[in-house]
Amino acid sequence: MFIQRVNNVRRLMERLNLDAIMLTSESNMLYTSGYSGISLERLISLLILREYDRVFLVIPKLEEKRAEENCKLEDVELLSYSDVEDPLTILKEIFSRYRLVNVGVEGVIQFKFIHPLLSKISNLKVSLIDDLMYSLRIVKDSQEIDKMKKAAEINNRLMVEAIQELRPGISEKSFMAFIKNRAFELGADEVPFTLVQSGVNSALPHQEPTSKIISKDDVVVLDVGVRYEGYYSDITRTIVCGRPSSRHLEIFNIVLNSQQKSLNNIRQGVKAEEIDMCARGVIESAGYGEYFIHRTGHGIGLEVHEPPYIKIGNTQRLEEGMAFTVEPGIYLPGYFGVRIEDNVIVRREGCINLTNLAKSLYPEDYTL
Amino acid sequence: MFIQRVNNVRRLMERLNLDAIMLTSESNMLYTSGYSGISLERLISLLILREYDRVFLVIPKLEEKRAEENCKLEDVELLSYSDVEDPLTILKEIFSRYRLVNVGVEGVIQFKFIHPLLSKISNLKVSLIDDLMYSLRIVKDSQEIDKMKKAAEINNRLMVEAIQELRPGISEKSFMAFIKNRAFELGADEVPFTLVQSGVNSALPHQEPTSKIISKDDVVVLDVGVRYEGYYSDITRTIVCGRPSSRHLEIFNIVLNSQQKSLNNIRQGVKAEEIDMCARGVIESAGYGEYFIHRTGHGIGLEVHEPPYIKIGNTQRLEEGMAFTVEPGIYLPGYFGVRIEDNVIVRREGCINLTNLAKSLYPEDYTL
Repeated sequence: MFIQRVNNVRRLMERLNLDAIMLTSESNMLYTSGYSGISLERLISLLILREYDRVFLVIPKLEEKRAEENCKLEDVELLSYSDVEDPLTILKEIFSRYRLVNVGVEGVIQFKFIHPLLSKISNLKVSLIDDLMYSLRIVKDSQEIDKMKKAAEINNRLMVEAIQELRPGISEKSFMAFIKNRAFELGADEVPFTLVQSGVNSALPHQEPTSKIISKDDVVVLDVGVRYEGYYSDITRTIVCGRPSSRHLEIFNIVLNSQQKSLNNIRQGVKAEEIDMCARGVIESAGYGEYFIHRTGHGIGLEVHEPPYIKIGNTQRLEEGMAFTVEPGIYLPGYFGVRIEDNVIVRREGCINLTNLAKSLYPEDYTL
Repeated sequence: MFIQRVNNVRRLMERLNLDAIMLTSESNMLYTSGYSGISLERLISLLILREYDRVFLVIPKLEEKRAEENCKLEDVELLSYSDVEDPLTILKEIFSRYRLVNVGVEGVIQFKFIHPLLSKISNLKVSLIDDLMYSLRIVKDSQEIDKMKKAAEINNRLMVEAIQELRPGISEKSFMAFIKNRAFELGADEVPFTLVQSGVNSALPHQEPTSKIISKDDVVVLDVGVRYEGYYSDITRTIVCGRPSSRHLEIFNIVLNSQQKSLNNIRQGVKAEEIDMCARGVIESAGYGEYFIHRTGHGIGLEVHEPPYIKIGNTQRLEEGMAFTVEPGIYLPGYFGVRIEDNVIVRREGCINLTNLAKSLYPEDYTL
């Protein structure tokens, strides 16, 4: 499977006349080799040459064992360096030995790993290969979908348990800790985010959990991500920890209708932006357009956010196997906010919704 | 305080002939403004001009409220963009309006935020300013040290509680979840890592917790980081969940002596590499040099890893107020590993050890 993926990469490299690509992101290394590490301070890079049948894995010595155990690509050459050696020396040596001139890198690579190469190798031409890699990753195969289903399953169960558990009197942070803890128990490999936003905080879509105590009748937005064998799930539900007001119900229903409109229109061939317009249209007609301050969704897979982006301007047509979130929201600053988020897989005549749990302001509606 | 820090930055910019610097890291934005966001998909940048008394904060609309609440720099101009706008257009406009040519960026900035600027603005010269920012941040002031003490206090207590709680039969992952959960309850703002490595896994210094069950008589390495008001603590202890063997005790004592030798030699004026050589010397003399596969320590503050690096080749002299870890280790592949890690602040005639808890293989030695 991995060698097939590397061959697909090489085919696209040929089209773009790239001599090599340097992968450094967890997602792309995992996708092409089964191994991944994170290039923070120390460079970790999978260097795929178009010719010579060569793939190099440049890693710190500390990573050797993990790389040997996890890298499923046969014939990869491990080049490890100690804390007193410079990985860029290794790269420069390979660049010169194989006369690599056109090299593709990822947008996420830190500039510190590129700047020294650009200043030392005069004929080096570096270009971005994100589109290349995403064009391969955007359609998920059945093995990938199985992992995404498993991630969603864990997340669905987690959300229901969390909502059943929630009582006024606990702080956002403590409730976040409960959710994180439970996520691992339910089998998540990682819990990249656990947003708990209550009362006025629910109107701030990116607000991290605070020490604010969740009060009776607060609107609570729960936005939780879990990772399972590399693949993410990302779900949001909004509830009221007590008795919703008529204003809460009004806004919730607009968001719910908005999301449903989008979900109903997903199928192969539709443009990504049309799905955004469905959701946005409902909210605008209800007079709250200016309070829907983000796009309708984002692709999801080996990254929490990846193509296809469900936003105006994205005219890419949906294909079977694409996976993304549908998450309209309305945020009334100083009052409250509502967002509902599901994860879907595109099918020829519709979509599979991986997020099969209730959508309701009332906690008691959430059951397993 | 923040305006003072920005003025210090400007003084160094003058020396390097920089027209502007573009900060994008959480740590540097927090240091200079009190606000920080993470530039993952969407650019978040604090642009400090050397002249015109101008500081711009380029942020997604979603971040507006948080920026207004947290940014303590007066006169900063907020430039926010929606999901359908491109922040690089805003930057290009400012670069041209103020004729910015020499612009400093951080090594951690993603290449995708630089590549379009380099290809569109022909006379732009981009250089790395990590050394500039770290030269300011490397010596901690008393406010910073207070926060680091608080982070260490939380972490010390957490380690003792975790060690007291540990029993054979729990999986590494479940124990990790327990520690994370407890960390938040004890007041941590973030828990960036919680390594639990038992038995043979303890010989893999970067191994994430697995589903392996911790057995009786396993060596267990616990390496835990917590963050408090922006500042990190990073502590490691190694214990045996039962009865240590004579081999365990032999290796533990070598690592302990190695660490003690380093700690004893820390004071203003000593070169960073000398502290590494102290630890390494003890381990080499005992015949285990090849199994100490990493540097002795790293600076710590607004980042978990920052200068000064305690490694051979770093001839920088320690100054009062520098903060770093001292963490020698011995890793016997296929058997077990031992690491002991403290956090210290350099003083004129020695150091303050922020990690005041036991160092012992026996869990019962750890008390509050």
